Amino acid sequence: MSLLMDNQFGELPVDKTVDTKFFLESVAYLPPFFDCLGSKVFVPIKSDISGNITKIRSVYDKDPAKYATLQQIVESEKEAYGTEWPKVGATLALMWLKRGLRFIQILLQSLADGEKDENNPNLIRVNITKAYDQALKKYHGWLVQKIFKAALLAAPYKSDFIKALSKGQEVREEDCMASVRQFLINYTATVDAIYEMYTMLNAELDYSV
Amino acid sequence: MSLLMDNQFGELPVDKTVDTKFFLESVAYLPPFFDCLGSKVFVPIKSDISGNITKIRSVYDKDPAKYATLQQIVESEKEAYGTEWPKVGATLALMWLKRGLRFIQILLQSLADGEKDENNPNLIRVNITKAYDQALKKYHGWLVQKIFKAALLAAPYKSDFIKALSKGQEVREEDCMASVRQFLINYTATVDAIYEMYTMLNAELDYSV
Ligand SMILES: CCCCCCCCCCCCC/C=C/[C@@H](O)[C@H](CO[C@@H]1O[C@H](CO)[C@H](O)[C@H](OS(=O)(=O)O)[C@H]1O)NC(=O)CCCCCCCCCCC
Ligand SMILES: CCCCCCCCCCCCC/C=C/[C@@H](O)[C@H](CO[C@@H]1O[C@H](CO)[C@H](O)[C@H](OS(=O)(=O)O)[C@H]1O)NC(=O)CCCCCCCCCCC
Repeated sequence: MSLLMDNQFGELPVDKTVDTKFFLESVAYLPPFFDCLGSKVFVPIKSDISGNITKIRSVYDKDPAKYATLQQIVESEKEAYGTEWPKVGATLALMWLKRGLRFIQILLQSLADGEKDENNPNLIRVNITKAYDQALKKYHGWLVQKIFKAALLAAPYKSDFIKALSKGQEVREEDCMASVRQFLINYTATVDAIYEMYTMLNAELDYSV
Repeated sequence: MSLLMDNQFGELPVDKTVDTKFFLESVAYLPPFFDCLGSKVFVPIKSDISGNITKIRSVYDKDPAKYATLQQIVESEKEAYGTEWPKVGATLALMWLKRGLRFIQILLQSLADGEKDENNPNLIRVNITKAYDQALKKYHGWLVQKIFKAALLAAPYKSDFIKALSKGQEVREEDCMASVRQFLINYTATVDAIYEMYTMLNAELDYSV
């Protein structure tokens, strides 16, 4: 499971603030995750997520000291943007990015937990659908939901997905899943912390696209 | 129909070569065309087309004299890339871009010709479907075709599409269509010339995505 393991997320400090620089370094390795899904159909998703990362990075680069933590970015923008906020700037980019991160988290967790369609054990549609339902569905209108259903048919077989996560090497499913579990520890903690921060700062929106 | 009319394509010379600089200037105004379709769903298409334009421009910028016409670009790349060609460089970008341009051409032509679903005269699905079938369908696998069918449901009403083409002004359909017809003259000639050039240079591929 080298793809993710090579780029582990760091452990959070006790106050659960997320260091912007480390966060940006770690998430930079996630867009290729969508290549693991194996179809060109996922290119727009990858671009959407890359766009979020670029937006956050460009804010950070303006003043790395001022924006040392993700929370400092969101709080500064709340201050700066008035009523436009939170549908603006890095606050909006991170709002959407965290949903993509949550999607990946739930998908990997579901696989690591061995959840499967007993009739089709080599399909990961149930795992993707679970991740989609919990992380994204409510933010998508009926049309994007319909497109999701179609795109789901392009999902890879579990064995191919595992091979892709393992950078093309044939590894035992159990070995790959052990790495996934290891990866998920700090990753899940980071994603949770961002969600909590959005709730706490009242930065969350629930409009759908 | 100001959106397109403000940025007319130039008349072709007798030898039908397409000037790269003028071409790039004119097509730069086309990605916003997909905003006229009125849904976020079309963002990935707009990015794909913008990406093609950027790719061609970056080749042109390296040596504007050498790449003065589109044909010079394709011929130089044929020379430079060997067996990789034509699935490479600006040759590949223009191969796909021309299909998007053809899509737009057929859609507008069909509207200007008054083709419509008599039972739903304010829908443009028949026009979009015609354009898709002729310009793109064969280059798309079953999955993307399926996604197209879903996305079609997000197509705007004809009246809204005309308003968007007219930059938000309420214009009579007939006035808008007169402008469309005017726009299509040089535009169609340019797209045709690019298709002919691809055939002539054996630069066309028919793989599907
Ligand atoms: C020829 C026929 C072609 C027809 C074309 C049809 C194309 C259909 C395209 C479907 C949508 C692609 C996914 C992108 C969806 C995006 O619309 C949403 C909202 O995107 C956000 O929007 C904000 C404004 O509201 C800002 O612009 C954000 O940008 S900002 O940085 O500027 O602030 C931006 O991320 N992102 C999302 O929903 C996030 C998606 C994460 C996806 C996670 C994985 C799902 C995996 C599924 C696996 C089966
Ligand atoms: C959360 C759920 C989310 C699920 C996500 C689903 C997303 C579905 C995305 C659907 C596809 C979006 C359209 C893009 C399709 C593209 O795949 C193709 C080929 O694209 C080409 O590929 C080449 C390599 O083979 C190079 O990379 C080219 O790039 S290069 O510049 O590098 O050489 C590139 O343009 N372009 C196309 O098919 C062109 C499309 C033109 C479209 C014209 C209008 C159609 C209008 C339809 C109106 C109803």
